[in-house]
Amino acid sequence: MNFIRLIVILACALNVVTANAAIDWHEVVPGVWKGIVGTPEDYSLLSVADCKPNLDGFSRLPQVGLPALADKITGTVSDGKTSLSIPLVKNEQIYGFGLNFQNVHQRGKILNLHVDHFGGKDTGRNHAPVPFYVSSAGYGIFVNSARYLTVYAGSGARKDSPDAPVAKDRNTDRSWTSRPYSDAVSVLVPAPGAEIYLIAGPTPMDVVRRYNLLCGGGPLPPRWGLGFTQRTPTKYSADKVKNEADEFERMGYPLDFIGLEPGWQSKAYPCTFEWDSTRFADPQAFVADMLARKVRVNLWTNPYVSPDSKIYNEMYPLSGSHTVWCGIVPDLADENARRLWQDKLDREHIGIGVSGYKIDEVDGYDFYLWPDVATFPSGVSAEQMRQTYGLWVQKVTDDAFRKRNTRTFGLVRASNAGGNSYPYVLYNDNYNHEDFITALINSGFCGVLWTPEVRGSKSSEEWLRRIQSVVFSPMAMINAWSSGTKPWSFPDVAEQVKEYSLLRMRMMPYWYSEFARYHFDGIPPFRAMNLEPGFNPETAASTVMKSTSLDDDPYLEAVSKEIKDQYMAGEYLLVAPMFAGQTSRKVVLPAGDWYDFYTGEYVGNARTLEVTPGLDRIPVYVKDGAIIPMTDPLLHAPTKGEKYNLEIRHYGKKDGHYRLYDDDGETFDYEKGDYAWRDIKVERQKNGMLKGSISKVEKNKPNNIGKVTWRFMTENK
Amino acid sequence: MNFIRLIVILACALNVVTANAAIDWHEVVPGVWKGIVGTPEDYSLLSVADCKPNLDGFSRLPQVGLPALADKITGTVSDGKTSLSIPLVKNEQIYGFGLNFQNVHQRGKILNLHVDHFGGKDTGRNHAPVPFYVSSAGYGIFVNSARYLTVYAGSGARKDSPDAPVAKDRNTDRSWTSRPYSDAVSVLVPAPGAEIYLIAGPTPMDVVRRYNLLCGGGPLPPRWGLGFTQRTPTKYSADKVKNEADEFERMGYPLDFIGLEPGWQSKAYPCTFEWDSTRFADPQAFVADMLARKVRVNLWTNPYVSPDSKIYNEMYPLSGSHTVWCGIVPDLADENARRLWQDKLDREHIGIGVSGYKIDEVDGYDFYLWPDVATFPSGVSAEQMRQTYGLWVQKVTDDAFRKRNTRTFGLVRASNAGGNSYPYVLYNDNYNHEDFITALINSGFCGVLWTPEVRGSKSSEEWLRRIQSVVFSPMAMINAWSSGTKPWSFPDVAEQVKEYSLLRMRMMPYWYSEFARYHFDGIPPFRAMNLEPGFNPETAASTVMKSTSLDDDPYLEAVSKEIKDQYMAGEYLLVAPMFAGQTSRKVVLPAGDWYDFYTGEYVGNARTLEVTPGLDRIPVYVKDGAIIPMTDPLLHAPTKGEKYNLEIRHYGKKDGHYRLYDDDGETFDYEKGDYAWRDIKVERQKNGMLKGSISKVEKNKPNNIGKVTWRFMTENK
Repeated sequence: MNFIRLIVILACALNVVTANAAIDWHEVVPGVWKGIVGTPEDYSLLSVADCKPNLDGFSRLPQVGLPALADKITGTVSDGKTSLSIPLVKNEQIYGFGLNFQNVHQRGKILNLHVDHFGGKDTGRNHAPVPFYVSSAGYGIFVNSARYLTVYAGSGARKDSPDAPVAKDRNTDRSWTSRPYSDAVSVLVPAPGAEIYLIAGPTPMDVVRRYNLLCGGGPLPPRWGLGFTQRTPTKYSADKVKNEADEFERMGYPLDFIGLEPGWQSKAYPCTFEWDSTRFADPQAFVADMLARKVRVNLWTNPYVSPDSKIYNEMYPLSGSHTVWCGIVPDLADENARRLWQDKLDREHIGIGVSGYKIDEVDGYDFYLWPDVATFPSGVSAEQMRQTYGLWVQKVTDDAFRKRNTRTFGLVRASNAGGNSYPYVLYNDNYNHEDFITALINSGFCGVLWTPEVRGSKSSEEWLRRIQSVVFSPMAMINAWSSGTKPWSFPDVAEQVKEYSLLRMRMMPYWYSEFARYHFDGIPPFRAMNLEPGFNPETAASTVMKSTSLDDDPYLEAVSKEIKDQYMAGEYLLVAPMFAGQTSRKVVLPAGDWYDFYTGEYVGNARTLEVTPGLDRIPVYVKDGAIIPMTDPLLHAPTKGEKYNLEIRHYGKKDGHYRLYDDDGETFDYEKGDYAWRDIKVERQKNGMLKGSISKVEKNKPNNIGKVTWRFMTENK
Repeated sequence: MNFIRLIVILACALNVVTANAAIDWHEVVPGVWKGIVGTPEDYSLLSVADCKPNLDGFSRLPQVGLPALADKITGTVSDGKTSLSIPLVKNEQIYGFGLNFQNVHQRGKILNLHVDHFGGKDTGRNHAPVPFYVSSAGYGIFVNSARYLTVYAGSGARKDSPDAPVAKDRNTDRSWTSRPYSDAVSVLVPAPGAEIYLIAGPTPMDVVRRYNLLCGGGPLPPRWGLGFTQRTPTKYSADKVKNEADEFERMGYPLDFIGLEPGWQSKAYPCTFEWDSTRFADPQAFVADMLARKVRVNLWTNPYVSPDSKIYNEMYPLSGSHTVWCGIVPDLADENARRLWQDKLDREHIGIGVSGYKIDEVDGYDFYLWPDVATFPSGVSAEQMRQTYGLWVQKVTDDAFRKRNTRTFGLVRASNAGGNSYPYVLYNDNYNHEDFITALINSGFCGVLWTPEVRGSKSSEEWLRRIQSVVFSPMAMINAWSSGTKPWSFPDVAEQVKEYSLLRMRMMPYWYSEFARYHFDGIPPFRAMNLEPGFNPETAASTVMKSTSLDDDPYLEAVSKEIKDQYMAGEYLLVAPMFAGQTSRKVVLPAGDWYDFYTGEYVGNARTLEVTPGLDRIPVYVKDGAIIPMTDPLLHAPTKGEKYNLEIRHYGKKDGHYRLYDDDGETFDYEKGDYAWRDIKVERQKNGMLKGSISKVEKNKPNNIGKVTWRFMTENK
């Protein structure tokens, strides 16, 4: 025992200070370099996610060399922890660090990246505290650690910094600031080593693409996943759920999948994963009945196992030391625990046709989940398990569907780096429309999807405003299991709600292609304006107030330009949601001519609009030359092999080009090449008129397209 | 290098899991046992504070054996961290974990003990996150670690716990709770070992006393420290400060010391520690002029060294890697840095008669202080330095005064365990009167002092209510450097303010004796009702609402009885502050007869009063048999050798006994035995009348008492 103790002491002593060393970089995929500091842990975000880089996608990115700042990035191991320092220059802004709800600009923030529910402030504790950021200077940094990282995103100044701020006398100098300039991002990794990735651009969008492709690219949802979804009250029976689906059909509102809340289980919190026989006497028949209605079934669950579950006894030795709501916590780092849980889900749900899950409470908060003192049989620490549990539940369930060659699209409350390709959308208990939009923007910086879901509303105005936003998001969900609200519950806006719900369906060819771009090229379908070329709110907005101390504090300057209430949806659309109570808002247009989505009229170029769209409209603008492929106002997404018509819209005056994606919409056969990209072109003819064309489908490739019509929104009228 | 890496890996591997072992306890002082888990770090809270247990004080506590729960406390080293588990039983409540502002009952809380400003919620981040708690069952636990500790104060349940909560179905069982019962406190120490102390009672008060005595006992302030203090606007000159003191004298308001804010320094934030020559041309003469007025000088500072300070160059190599407001951070774990700073203060302030400091910004917050990636030449980590910096600045300055055999009493923004005997009072930027009272209550559980200071007020009502509270606190401070408010600024309550200011002065013999009890016996002068025998709000209050699920959730029951707006001041007084806007309040009286402080009238026994005291009065109640020694309404505390008269009050019907403490009031000669305890007795005579007596002073002991008068508040009228 003394020998062991000696070694520990010796190791600690040796570990105390390592020289502040530059990092040895090696390129792992094109434009992405990995550096090793100290002795990184084997258990990491990427090792859990086990994702394979999408190498094909990199081939469509520019060739780049190691960014110059590589030499200035340092890593040190001290006090058993690793600290990383990445330089910043003046006027540089940084984005990312996970699914933040309040800010897009991260420079100056201090964050503790910790998987948790969102507690009302951007502290780094959230549902996907991804340790990745992208700089406006066109590079990115990713730290592959499953620990609670502390990030000083340009806060704190070294006394020996070449760019150190200068001391001022607070007694007499009005330019004194409580937060002096900082020229570095510092990251503290509480482990004796870390893997750091330096990701090249040249543009910030290229950085984001490389990061997503490194992590396997975005998910390609089944086509139905992009339709409309509703969640029913927790104690609904099979008949009530079927009635609900029928009512949507009768009322003319689209519905592709319906979510059952905890009451479908015989016991919940903790869970049995078994159907409640009083409400669902014949689950197989129920699921089949729903599928016959073209409405798929999604099941709520959390992973904590009830003593009444048939897998409890077998799971007990494979679970952590502490319970959650008195349920045991499967040690999902253990293959046997994963298999046991997956088999249960497959046998009793997926095998009978259930299409997806809503996996709840894998995020936090501390009062609910296992404490940091918990232990797991695999030896993975409570902290590491907390950071990766969201990844594990996605992996286990996604893999179950994959084994049946059927895609899923579900909901999960936690994710992290590496989860980029899992077909899951994040959600939470917060219900602030503005925060939801900021989260949607930030989701594009961290490789996750986010839904600004609609639950209840205090007014018809709020109901419609929220519906308008959710239509332009990864998952068009009415999550009214608690409020019981239906799309038509507010009669004075029921028609507008229907119009937007159907618009979601009409835009399905566009959404599906944009998700394909996420998958194949790493381009997030929903993302910040900051990734858009020519976006400069400073020059665009004469109305943006200027800070008086801009010259002194470049950080302040950057903050003054933060835009967190408008975003890009796919290649061409700029969405500017309206919030209840607003009658007008400002919209910052990037450089280039922009057109109104609804009318095709020109609205401006590199300027700030003040718009008053009325309650019927969410402001949406379209780039010059945009091609938006649409279809009919279907009530359900086309199923495998079902043809759909195209209405191809063109906006503005420029020639246009769009690559339309198509496959069977349901299976993983696209991974074997069973997909088609079709070139849609709009070109100006000699007669001055615009004309559209669509390329033929290659031999043996899927083709689900029926009738094609053209609609020139700005010209040819 | 490979050999080193091998050792590190080997050590980490071996360190992963240690058996969940019972702890080997050994008694370090009477009733206090120390246990070692893993390999504790040398740098700890107690090693920094370097306090000597007050052994004499233990002799006046009951003899006790090792508490039975000792066997059930376990410690484990896993993942390089130490986790401690201490059992809880039903209906047990726990108190402490530092200077919390919102709650007294800590059971069920999750806290991250981290020195910081108070950010509006009790998260464990505060000015004194002391890792000590006391149980209502009559034992205490102290973890001597200078790390950021995570505490689950009865949250989280082990699956193998003998007292594990039982799973319930949320779908159908209304008694389901999101926070099931937990039968343990867990503490995560992020280090491969920890020292844990188990402190016996038998009563909770005995536990608190033992904890304080282990840490050297409370401070004995100079007599003037218990007088009134005011802080002047930051750019006041020497003349203006003198005028301010003269104005207090002329208006008839007491004043013992006056605080100068940053403007006394030539540069501040960061600091030179040097007098500003334009405002203070002759500091020595200024301080002497003030002392001639019987008003002492206290100087604001923070420890961050300006490049313009004459000690900057010498301090540079002795400072941390990162700056605070562009000032270097002295590595106070290094003796040379301590000496350099101390010499500066001694030479330029203490040596010319300055009496104390207000040491600011040693707490937080993260945006201001050094980041956790900072390093210090001593090898002490940024985390450890953050947890102990408040201790270091107290130690350096206290020691400077001690070398001149003169006591100080000052203000500091951060402390921690071990700082119990430093003559400093904590304060902060929060300004919520209710929170301030709760902090005052909690200060008594964690060995620190706290002032509910008065700054500005929105109304004369608030001004008076705050003054009334601060009079019954460790430091009677008007901290109006920003608002410029004077005690007489609200004319309609100026007389009441004067009355209470003078009451503070009249009660000085009581306050001074109660602080002596803190020093010699470890009894906090200001403390929770929960330490008072016979305090039971449940039986006292018919009006306290009962939770409907008391049977299911003992934690809820405990919370329902939390009292956080009344406290004990010294041996006999129960103070129940009124907050602006209140016209009435409830007061819970412990068992025993209680009397009104102002009238001597009987008010009740073990019951809840509803009181409507009017604006002129803060409700204060006195125990039966209480003896309160008072003096004349002086404007300044008696100086060394100055006699003061006694008015000895007796309350109620019981015989009384009080031990009055006396010494020179200014030096450390009391540590050599130069002090006197005098027995004051009130006994019922054969004629039924009460009669008082005071013992003679022993030979060669100090005696500053002049005329003695008796006042029987309840009887003999």
